[in-house]
Amino acid sequence: MKAVVYQGNGVVKVQEVEKPTIIKADDAIVRVTTAAICGSDLHIIHGVLPVDPGTVIGHEFVGIVEEVGSAVTTVKPGDRVLSMAGINCGKCPTCRSRKVWACPNGGIFGNGPMFGNLQGVQAEFARVQYADEVLTKIPDQLEDEQVIFVGDILATGYLGITGVKPDDRGLIKPGGSVAIYGSGPVGLCTLAAAQIYGAAKIIMIDPLEYRLEMAGKMGADVLINPDKVDPVKAILEATNGLGAELAVEASGSDEALYNCINSVCAAGTVNILGIVNKPIQLDFSKLIAKNITIEAGICNVIHTQELLDLISAARIDMMPIITHTMPLADAEKAYDIFDKRTDGVVKIILKP
Amino acid sequence: MKAVVYQGNGVVKVQEVEKPTIIKADDAIVRVTTAAICGSDLHIIHGVLPVDPGTVIGHEFVGIVEEVGSAVTTVKPGDRVLSMAGINCGKCPTCRSRKVWACPNGGIFGNGPMFGNLQGVQAEFARVQYADEVLTKIPDQLEDEQVIFVGDILATGYLGITGVKPDDRGLIKPGGSVAIYGSGPVGLCTLAAAQIYGAAKIIMIDPLEYRLEMAGKMGADVLINPDKVDPVKAILEATNGLGAELAVEASGSDEALYNCINSVCAAGTVNILGIVNKPIQLDFSKLIAKNITIEAGICNVIHTQELLDLISAARIDMMPIITHTMPLADAEKAYDIFDKRTDGVVKIILKP
Amino acid sequence: MKAVVYQGNGVVKVQEVEKPTIIKADDAIVRVTTAAICGSDLHIIHGVLPVDPGTVIGHEFVGIVEEVGSAVTTVKPGDRVLSMAGINCGKCPTCRSRKVWACPNGGIFGNGPMFGNLQGVQAEFARVQYADEVLTKIPDQLEDEQVIFVGDILATGYLGITGVKPDDRGLIKPGGSVAIYGSGPVGLCTLAAAQIYGAAKIIMIDPLEYRLEMAGKMGADVLINPDKVDPVKAILEATNGLGAELAVEASGSDEALYNCINSVCAAGTVNILGIVNKPIQLDFSKLIAKNITIEAGICNVIHTQELLDLISAARIDMMPIITHTMPLADAEKAYDIFDKRTDGVVKIILKP
Amino acid sequence: MKAVVYQGNGVVKVQEVEKPTIIKADDAIVRVTTAAICGSDLHIIHGVLPVDPGTVIGHEFVGIVEEVGSAVTTVKPGDRVLSMAGINCGKCPTCRSRKVWACPNGGIFGNGPMFGNLQGVQAEFARVQYADEVLTKIPDQLEDEQVIFVGDILATGYLGITGVKPDDRGLIKPGGSVAIYGSGPVGLCTLAAAQIYGAAKIIMIDPLEYRLEMAGKMGADVLINPDKVDPVKAILEATNGLGAELAVEASGSDEALYNCINSVCAAGTVNILGIVNKPIQLDFSKLIAKNITIEAGICNVIHTQELLDLISAARIDMMPIITHTMPLADAEKAYDIFDKRTDGVVKIILKP
Repeated sequence: MKAVVYQGNGVVKVQEVEKPTIIKADDAIVRVTTAAICGSDLHIIHGVLPVDPGTVIGHEFVGIVEEVGSAVTTVKPGDRVLSMAGINCGKCPTCRSRKVWACPNGGIFGNGPMFGNLQGVQAEFARVQYADEVLTKIPDQLEDEQVIFVGDILATGYLGITGVKPDDRGLIKPGGSVAIYGSGPVGLCTLAAAQIYGAAKIIMIDPLEYRLEMAGKMGADVLINPDKVDPVKAILEATNGLGAELAVEASGSDEALYNCINSVCAAGTVNILGIVNKPIQLDFSKLIAKNITIEAGICNVIHTQELLDLISAARIDMMPIITHTMPLADAEKAYDIFDKRTDGVVKIILKP
Repeated sequence: MKAVVYQGNGVVKVQEVEKPTIIKADDAIVRVTTAAICGSDLHIIHGVLPVDPGTVIGHEFVGIVEEVGSAVTTVKPGDRVLSMAGINCGKCPTCRSRKVWACPNGGIFGNGPMFGNLQGVQAEFARVQYADEVLTKIPDQLEDEQVIFVGDILATGYLGITGVKPDDRGLIKPGGSVAIYGSGPVGLCTLAAAQIYGAAKIIMIDPLEYRLEMAGKMGADVLINPDKVDPVKAILEATNGLGAELAVEASGSDEALYNCINSVCAAGTVNILGIVNKPIQLDFSKLIAKNITIEAGICNVIHTQELLDLISAARIDMMPIITHTMPLADAEKAYDIFDKRTDGVVKIILKP
Repeated sequence: MKAVVYQGNGVVKVQEVEKPTIIKADDAIVRVTTAAICGSDLHIIHGVLPVDPGTVIGHEFVGIVEEVGSAVTTVKPGDRVLSMAGINCGKCPTCRSRKVWACPNGGIFGNGPMFGNLQGVQAEFARVQYADEVLTKIPDQLEDEQVIFVGDILATGYLGITGVKPDDRGLIKPGGSVAIYGSGPVGLCTLAAAQIYGAAKIIMIDPLEYRLEMAGKMGADVLINPDKVDPVKAILEATNGLGAELAVEASGSDEALYNCINSVCAAGTVNILGIVNKPIQLDFSKLIAKNITIEAGICNVIHTQELLDLISAARIDMMPIITHTMPLADAEKAYDIFDKRTDGVVKIILKP
Repeated sequence: MKAVVYQGNGVVKVQEVEKPTIIKADDAIVRVTTAAICGSDLHIIHGVLPVDPGTVIGHEFVGIVEEVGSAVTTVKPGDRVLSMAGINCGKCPTCRSRKVWACPNGGIFGNGPMFGNLQGVQAEFARVQYADEVLTKIPDQLEDEQVIFVGDILATGYLGITGVKPDDRGLIKPGGSVAIYGSGPVGLCTLAAAQIYGAAKIIMIDPLEYRLEMAGKMGADVLINPDKVDPVKAILEATNGLGAELAVEASGSDEALYNCINSVCAAGTVNILGIVNKPIQLDFSKLIAKNITIEAGICNVIHTQELLDLISAARIDMMPIITHTMPLADAEKAYDIFDKRTDGVVKIILKP
């Protein structure tokens, strides 16, 4: 079958690889109908996330079940399904406490040895372990593109608002204000989540005008280009001098993190979704004086049903962020566009 | 000054009465610019809520501060303010625990001896005790009509979704389903609150088609006329047979209460906003088998700032429910229309 | 094997029955080492809970795994395990939303056709379906008697304090007051749970002096015999006239329910654990005036790990309620003592 | 009157100063009956917290109301009262949202220009602004020493467990594990709070053996001397390798903060109570991989009634931490002992 294979040294190629097969009783093989490229796939290209050459990459997809192992009970061949970006066993104490991202038996598709060394899903077929836990049937009336983000970036944006703990009930109260640093795919998903949680003032910060414009169309209340105005000042102005109730870092920059701390209100929260791998110097006296909460985390996919209900009800619609749909065969070109942020790109869909 | 005065035997008249004056240091006198008639004003007319003849009635209003007592610090003459429907001292243990409706020093304007025997506000002027607690300045850009419901029916509808306890965090989770029995003023405010809390399926039940139609325009997902279809069946169908996460009784009928119990899901909540004064027979085995929570309550006005922020951000707009605006002098006619539900009436504003 | 078999007409007998065997891949057979008689077993004897003659009864037990089906992964032969009082599949939408008691594939051991028509566990062996969901390994250092209540009455008493919804965070705040009507096994488990949740004043009401005395030894702050004093008056006195934050009905009487409503504070909660099968007349104006929440429910066993941790840490110790330990062969006599409340009985253990 | 006056250069002296008088209508003058020395008073001595020479210091006290301004309604001369460590107006938006520590009209007694430049309370008399907000009557049956910590270090330790946001409902669930770095006054108050919230395993870390011993007597489950064993290893061992649900930094050291991060579980919380004024380098990849929440904050005194109820019920007893009671006249010696941690000191009471 065709698949996007990491070659090492930042190079990806579409190649023929062996089609995966059922190995364990709780496996499923899924024929991929729609996949996407994620910002974290770029970490592989940039050498920040180690992946062995020869590995199929990609972790966002939906598809049709081709075959299931003998122990699988909740999906069957022919079912159209969405998948979490990773796998988890569902039975260990960590899974039982709903921290599925941290399952010691788990991993993330195509994310290399740090994450279970699983094959990825930018391919014609994917093997999904613990299929009962990882796959969810898609309601007939929803298209692939409406639901493909549920298992990864939408769950991440949602966690930006709900909080990183599995039993959190939301980091804002209705009527609250949220500043979102970064209007890329994750930032825009965070915007959608903020609307669901009743935010009254959603402030987006991004240096790319076309991305700000998209945020505006999706309902953001205040748009800030940090190359033009001081975002901290602008956020304070927009919030009667008090600061935002929640600041979400979805851009991956140190400076954005400092700005988050400086622009939240007393007893506010800073939630860090952009992956920051290096040490950062923090002035704790600022945190203490304002009673700030800082959260940081990896996507914990436990709200799938909730998100499907919201999408079915048209309360969440992430289709507008899809700027490009390309055949899987053109994946190399797609990675290039996505990496260089050309062509007004926000999110690219790959069709196997 | 002119005021709506209860005459006894279900009769109201617009009469000249004495203008109120400052009595205590924490009083304010407010010149009423906009008042409204509430469903509970009809309880007075119908003899369900005892009020002495000669009492000014009405409890929903906004206005301009005319004069303040020496201890008042948060509002001053000339300020445009909204008022809670009642008063509370703000300093007793009950107020400190944010149960302001239950303040032993409190009461509801124009609601008779059971509620502090206070004069009402359908009048040219109103005396407001504990002014610092009860009055809130209105942001300049908002009209009277946008905010007049904040201190009473919108707070009631909001409590329908947040729950009757002051520290409740909402009776639904995002993506949840809500069935609202009664599409009158309180039911429609509950609809607005459900949207803020991220409900994915809002089901309105009312026998009056024009009120259902209004609910549909305001964003309800499913409209049920119980004279035409069995509402319990229809709700179960709309929720995959599981029942609604929350059922709100906002119509005042016993049958609606039974329907609520029969149409919520396992671990669901029934919230009773319609005032029911008689004893009702309940089958507890049904509650137990489904682990149901039943809540009932009077409006607890503690979310004023939150609601103002939501209105300012156009996330809540209750203007559409105002079907009539009439001079205070026509109050008698207004009460007649409101009581008989003629002329497509939902909510009537009185202008002194 | 020997088992307690319901004969119809309120009669139980210890008889030889066939030993259960593995039927499905996710079954386990457990050798029962300790069982208990529950208040709801008496409902069978009293004809309130229909069970077919010839059915093994009982639903509280711990034991040692004898054999497991091929799909069972979390327990193996030789493991000492506690069981939930019922079974649930773990994979349906209802289980996924942690409402395990309501699983459409579930049931309660030995509780007849209304609850899945499963064989009971007052026997030498028990078949446990969905073994991965229903059984939990017992830490070595804990005795059978320390943990046997975790899967039923302790989970019920815990739900009395946490609330009937799976995501509830407790019906009291630290420092709160709780009135518990009924100092039998469930009432005493509720007492233990109230201590864990930081209650400052725990008030027990029971007409049996020896049960009140046990409550006092377990840490209750106020003991009320309703045959001697008016419990509502006494509770109001003990709470500065405000009423208890939470009143739990654990006695099964209508009058206790009325007393609960009359003795909770504004915005308080009444939680009904005693099973009440008949219709009851309620005065809703009382609920509304005080903004009361009424909850009712069946035990939802989702806090097993939490309870095991609390028992291991000696924060919960339910051993004192075990007043009798008898051989399974004497079950008929045991039922008689338990039903008639003679011999100072609170809870009886049966040893197969 | 006599008072402890800061002289500059780390020197305190007991001196005669002018007795304070009522200045505003909402002031009260309190005759101090019991005061205490706080760890943050040492920051003044050490030059970390700037205070002008000539300022009376101290912020922990109880006393008897001597005189009140005309607007004060909740306390009267002769009332025995406890005070918050600082003042807040109670009427601004920040106070209304229950973030009283951040009140723009507020300050902390005797904490210098950064905190409102108020005179302190280690003195015979103290002026208390906003007396209705700041003072609370003490139940007759409680001694000064039982309640003196409610307005400062006990509120701080409580915030260590409840969380820094005013509407937080606790950072642990019943049965959870808590690691507390620092067994000084604040750490021991945190221990008491953890017990109230149902912690099953409380781990105290401190290099001073006599302080660990006190923690053991007060109910800590695991005692760790970091000079003898690696605390991170020891905590992981005590928690089945998972880490503590909550780690509280109450020692003021950077290393303790790093240890906190390394010893919490997935989705765990680190709460920083020890004041850290310098910048600290953090490895965010660790926070992200574990979905950690970091909180930091200043004591927000909003749980006074709750704490009084818990103390009245003997659920909290902080008397054991009082190791020294000395006359106010000996304050210089008291500061010396407290600063050098000699004589087995934990907490020193001063009697004016």
